[in-house]
Amino acid sequence: MEKESDPSNNWGRWGDDDERGALNLITADAVLRAVSTVRTGTALTLAVPLRAGEGPIFEGRAPLQHFMTRHGGDYAAGLKEKGFGFADDYVLVATHGTTHIDALAHVWREGAMWNGHSSNLVTSIGARKCGIENVGAIVTRAVLVDFADQYEASGDPRHAIDVDDLSAAVAATGIDVMPGDALLVRTGWVRAWRSQRAQVTAWPGLAPNCAEWINEAGFALVGADNIAVELGPSPRENDAAPLHARLVRDFGIYLVELLDLEAIAAQGRSSFLLSIAPMPLVGGVGSPVNPIAVL
Amino acid sequence: MEKESDPSNNWGRWGDDDERGALNLITADAVLRAVSTVRTGTALTLAVPLRAGEGPIFEGRAPLQHFMTRHGGDYAAGLKEKGFGFADDYVLVATHGTTHIDALAHVWREGAMWNGHSSNLVTSIGARKCGIENVGAIVTRAVLVDFADQYEASGDPRHAIDVDDLSAAVAATGIDVMPGDALLVRTGWVRAWRSQRAQVTAWPGLAPNCAEWINEAGFALVGADNIAVELGPSPRENDAAPLHARLVRDFGIYLVELLDLEAIAAQGRSSFLLSIAPMPLVGGVGSPVNPIAVL
Amino acid sequence: MEKESDPSNNWGRWGDDDERGALNLITADAVLRAVSTVRTGTALTLAVPLRAGEGPIFEGRAPLQHFMTRHGGDYAAGLKEKGFGFADDYVLVATHGTTHIDALAHVWREGAMWNGHSSNLVTSIGARKCGIENVGAIVTRAVLVDFADQYEASGDPRHAIDVDDLSAAVAATGIDVMPGDALLVRTGWVRAWRSQRAQVTAWPGLAPNCAEWINEAGFALVGADNIAVELGPSPRENDAAPLHARLVRDFGIYLVELLDLEAIAAQGRSSFLLSIAPMPLVGGVGSPVNPIAVL
Amino acid sequence: MEKESDPSNNWGRWGDDDERGALNLITADAVLRAVSTVRTGTALTLAVPLRAGEGPIFEGRAPLQHFMTRHGGDYAAGLKEKGFGFADDYVLVATHGTTHIDALAHVWREGAMWNGHSSNLVTSIGARKCGIENVGAIVTRAVLVDFADQYEASGDPRHAIDVDDLSAAVAATGIDVMPGDALLVRTGWVRAWRSQRAQVTAWPGLAPNCAEWINEAGFALVGADNIAVELGPSPRENDAAPLHARLVRDFGIYLVELLDLEAIAAQGRSSFLLSIAPMPLVGGVGSPVNPIAVL
Repeated sequence: MEKESDPSNNWGRWGDDDERGALNLITADAVLRAVSTVRTGTALTLAVPLRAGEGPIFEGRAPLQHFMTRHGGDYAAGLKEKGFGFADDYVLVATHGTTHIDALAHVWREGAMWNGHSSNLVTSIGARKCGIENVGAIVTRAVLVDFADQYEASGDPRHAIDVDDLSAAVAATGIDVMPGDALLVRTGWVRAWRSQRAQVTAWPGLAPNCAEWINEAGFALVGADNIAVELGPSPRENDAAPLHARLVRDFGIYLVELLDLEAIAAQGRSSFLLSIAPMPLVGGVGSPVNPIAVL
Repeated sequence: MEKESDPSNNWGRWGDDDERGALNLITADAVLRAVSTVRTGTALTLAVPLRAGEGPIFEGRAPLQHFMTRHGGDYAAGLKEKGFGFADDYVLVATHGTTHIDALAHVWREGAMWNGHSSNLVTSIGARKCGIENVGAIVTRAVLVDFADQYEASGDPRHAIDVDDLSAAVAATGIDVMPGDALLVRTGWVRAWRSQRAQVTAWPGLAPNCAEWINEAGFALVGADNIAVELGPSPRENDAAPLHARLVRDFGIYLVELLDLEAIAAQGRSSFLLSIAPMPLVGGVGSPVNPIAVL
Repeated sequence: MEKESDPSNNWGRWGDDDERGALNLITADAVLRAVSTVRTGTALTLAVPLRAGEGPIFEGRAPLQHFMTRHGGDYAAGLKEKGFGFADDYVLVATHGTTHIDALAHVWREGAMWNGHSSNLVTSIGARKCGIENVGAIVTRAVLVDFADQYEASGDPRHAIDVDDLSAAVAATGIDVMPGDALLVRTGWVRAWRSQRAQVTAWPGLAPNCAEWINEAGFALVGADNIAVELGPSPRENDAAPLHARLVRDFGIYLVELLDLEAIAAQGRSSFLLSIAPMPLVGGVGSPVNPIAVL
Repeated sequence: MEKESDPSNNWGRWGDDDERGALNLITADAVLRAVSTVRTGTALTLAVPLRAGEGPIFEGRAPLQHFMTRHGGDYAAGLKEKGFGFADDYVLVATHGTTHIDALAHVWREGAMWNGHSSNLVTSIGARKCGIENVGAIVTRAVLVDFADQYEASGDPRHAIDVDDLSAAVAATGIDVMPGDALLVRTGWVRAWRSQRAQVTAWPGLAPNCAEWINEAGFALVGADNIAVELGPSPRENDAAPLHARLVRDFGIYLVELLDLEAIAAQGRSSFLLSIAPMPLVGGVGSPVNPIAVL
C-alpha cells in the first residue's frame, strides 16, 4: 500500500532509496492502458531534427558537433574497400541541448534532490544517484493539450499557462487521467522558433502553480515544445525554475523538453502511446531522446 | 503495387530516391501487429549500460566520454543556488560505439550504397543521403531466436549461425513472419563478454548465407547481441562484412548491434513489440539507441 | 647548392619529398641571428587568450570547449584527498580556431599541395604528408610591420595592404631581411575586434600581390593579427584565398593567424626572437600556438 | 626586497595575490642568461609526438582524439575547390595527456593551492585563480641531468632519484644554478616506454626529499621524461604525490611532464635556452606543450 499523499512532496513514497520517482507509477497496467489507445498504427517521432551547429538550444550550451571519422571521401581519395566501404562518426552533444529528458539528478534545492538524495552525489564523475540510467524504458499513455494558438494570439513571448488553463484543457480532452500518464503540452514555441518569431531567451510554458495539480493528477512525466516545460525566464525573482524544483525534486516527475509536437498536433488525437528511451548513460543527468508516439 | 521480387537486391523497390529501405515494410498494419503482441505490459530496455571509458566497443572506436559542466560539487564549492541548483553534462560518443543502429549510409560496395546512392554523398559534413534521420520512429513486431547456449557449447569464439540454423530457429517459434518484422538474434556474445569469456576481436553471429533468406522472409531489421550481427571477423578473405553488404546495401535492411538481450531472453517470449528511436541527427551514419521491448 | 629560383614556385627546392617547405630556410645561422636580436630579456606572448565558447573565430568553426573532469568542487562535495587533491581537464579545440599556425597540408589547388603532394593524402585519418608534426621547433628572427593605424584611418573593413605598402614598411624598419626570417604584420584587426569595431566576416590584410615579394625576400613564415593573414573575404571571385594558395602551396611559407600583436607593438621594436611551438600532432593540419617574442 | 626565505613554503613571497609562483624568478636577467647559453643555433623539440588514440598517457585519462572536418577526400568525392581546397581539424585532448605543463591550479592540499588560494576556486568553469593563462611565455636557462642509464641498470621500475643523486648530478654539470633556471631530469622512462620495457603504471623519478633542495636552488620549473616528475606510484601511503604538493602548492614551482629528452640528451649539453608556451586557456589547469631547446 502506498503511503498517504503528502502535499509537500513524494519523498519516501516509493521507498527511501528510490531513484526513479514517478516512473514507479508506470505499472504494467499503465503500459497496457497506453497500448489500448493505439488505433491506426501511425508512429511519429516527437524530436526536433539534430543538425550540427544548430539549435534550438538554451544559451550557455554548445550545439551538437558531428565528426565523421571515415566516409566516402576517404575511398574517393584512394582508400581500398575490403569487400565493402563504410562510414563512421562521433557526436558531441549536450544532453540537454536538443529534445531531451531530465534525469532526476538534474536539479535540487538546498542541497537535496529527489527523495532527499544529496546534491553532493552529483560530481565530475556523474550522478551516483538518480542518474538517467534509472529511467530504463518508458512506455505510457500520453495526454496532449494544445496552447499554441493561445500563445500566438497573446503576443506575449512568455505566455503563461496557469493551473486553471491546464486543468481545463485536460478536462476538455475528456480523458480520465490515470496515474503514470504523461502530460504533453504544446506551447507553440517550437513552431514560432522555427519561423523565426521566437528566441531562446523567452518562451511560453507552464506557470509555477501547475505543479501540485500535475502531481495530484498522477502524471509521471511532463513534456513540452519549449526550453524548460515551465515558462521562462522565471516570473519569480531568485527562483530560476520553480516548476523544476517542485516537479522533479519534490514530486519525482520527469520533464521532457524541446519536443517537436507539430506532427502529432496535426493528427487531432488527445491520447496515444508514448515511448521514450534515453541513453542508458550511467551517471548522466539527462539524455537526448527521440520520443515516439503511436496512434 | 510493389515491383516483382528481384533476387539480387531491393533497389528501386520503394522508388529510385528512397532512403529508408526496408523500413518501408513497417506499415500501419505492421505497427498494429506489433501492438497486438503485447500481453503483460512489461517494458524492457535492450541496451547495454553506457559507462564512460568502457565497452563493449569494437577496436578502433574510442569509448564514450562523459563531461559534467555543472554539478553538485560546484555548489559545495560556493556557487549560489538561484532557487534551485542544477547539473549539466555532455557526451562524446561513437555512434557505433555501444548499442546502436546503422544508417543505410553506413556501408557501400563499389561506390554505391543502398538504392544506388553514391558513397560520394557521405563526406565530412555527413551523409547527404540515407542518413540516420531517415529512420524516424520504428515500432514493429520482433521475433527473437536464441543461440546463446549453442555458442557456449560450441567452444568456437566465431560460432557461425547459418541459414539452416536460423530458419529452423525462426520456424520453431511458430510465428508466421510478416513483412516489416524485426529479427532479433541472441548469439550469447554479450553474456560471454560480460563474464570475461569473450573479446571484441572475435564473436559469434550470422553466416553470410543468411542474407537472402532474411530478405525473403521480409524482415525490416536484424539485431543481435554482438559487434556486427554477422559473425566476425569475416570468414571471407577480402570481404570484411559480407552480410552488411547484402543486408544494408543491397536489401535496405537495418542492423542493430550490441544489443543486450539477457533480460528479454529470460522472459521466454518469442515475439513482442519493439520500439527503436535513433537520434534524428541529420547526416549521421548511425546512432546509439535504447531499444524497448513491450511484452 | 640550392636550385635556381623558380618564379612560379619552390617545389623541389628542398628535395622532392620535402614536407617542411620554407622552414628549411631557418638554418642554425638564422637561429643565431634571432638570438642576436635579444636586448632586454623581455619575453611576450603573442596569442589571444582562449576562453571557452568565445572567439575571435572564423565562421563555421566552433569555439573551444573546456571540460573539467576533476576539480575542487568534487572535494568540497566529499571526495577525499589522498595527500593531495587535483584538478584535470580536457579541451576540444579547432586547430584553426584561435591563434594558430597552418600546416602545409592545410591548403591545395588542383589536387596538389606543397611540393606537389596530392591532396588525397589528407583524409579522415589526417595528413599523411605535410602534417603539423613536420614543423617541430621554430626559432627565428621576426620583422614586425604595423598597419593598424592605417586600417583605422581607412575606414575600410577590408583594408588592403598591397606589395608596395608592405615592401615600404619593411624597408622603413631598416632591417636587412634574411632567408628564414618571419614577417609579422599588425593589421589592427584584433584591436578593432576587441573593441567591437570589427567582425569576423571582414578583415584587413595582405593583398594577393604580396606573395611573390614575400617569397623573394626569403621569409619562412608570415603572421598577422587577423583571420587569414590575407585580407578577407577575398577580392577575387572564385579564388577564396589567393595568398594561401601562393604562399603555403606554391612557396611552402607558413601562415600564423589570429596573433595578438598589441603588447609587442607597444614595445617599439621591429625585430626580435620569435619562437613558435605547435602541438606535434601527427597528421594535424594546423595547431593552436602561443608564439613567444623575446626582445 | 623579497621577504626572508620561509623553509615551509613560498606563499606570500611574490605578494598575497600572486598566481604565477616561481615564474616570478624568471626575470629579464634570467632570460638574458638563457640567451647567453646559445652556441650552435640548434633548435630541438622536447615533446613526444601526439598520435590519436595513443600514449604515453596516465591511466584514467583518455588519449587524444583527432577529428578532420574537411579534407582531401571531400574534394575527391566531388566538393568543388574555390580557387583552393582546404583541410580543417579539431583535437580533443586531456591537457595532462601528453607532454604538458601543470598549472598551479592543478593540485592542492587541505583545500589550499599555491599561495593559499582555495581549491574551491577550481570548479566546472575552470580555475578562477592560478589557471594556466597565468604562465604566459617561459624563456629561461635549462639545466639537464641524466639518470637514464642508472634507471636501466637498476632494474627497478620505480627507480628513485633522491636529493643526493640529484644535487650531485647538478653539481657535476659545473653550472652555477641561478634563480629562475629550469631543471630537466632525464629518467629514461620515455626511452624504456618506447621500446616497450616500461608501463604507465610505474616509473622512475624524483624522490620526495628533492623538494626543498630544488626550491632552495631557485629552480622555477622542473621537467622530466616521465608521468609525474616524481617517481610513481608514490612511495608514501596516503600521500599520492608528495613532490607535487611541495613543489607546486608550497613552492609555486612548475612541473613539466612526459618530456621527450632523447634528442637533447644526445647533444651532450647540460645547459641551453628553454622556451615553453602553453595554450593561454583561461582557467585551464594544464596545457599540452611543445618545449623548445635552443643550443
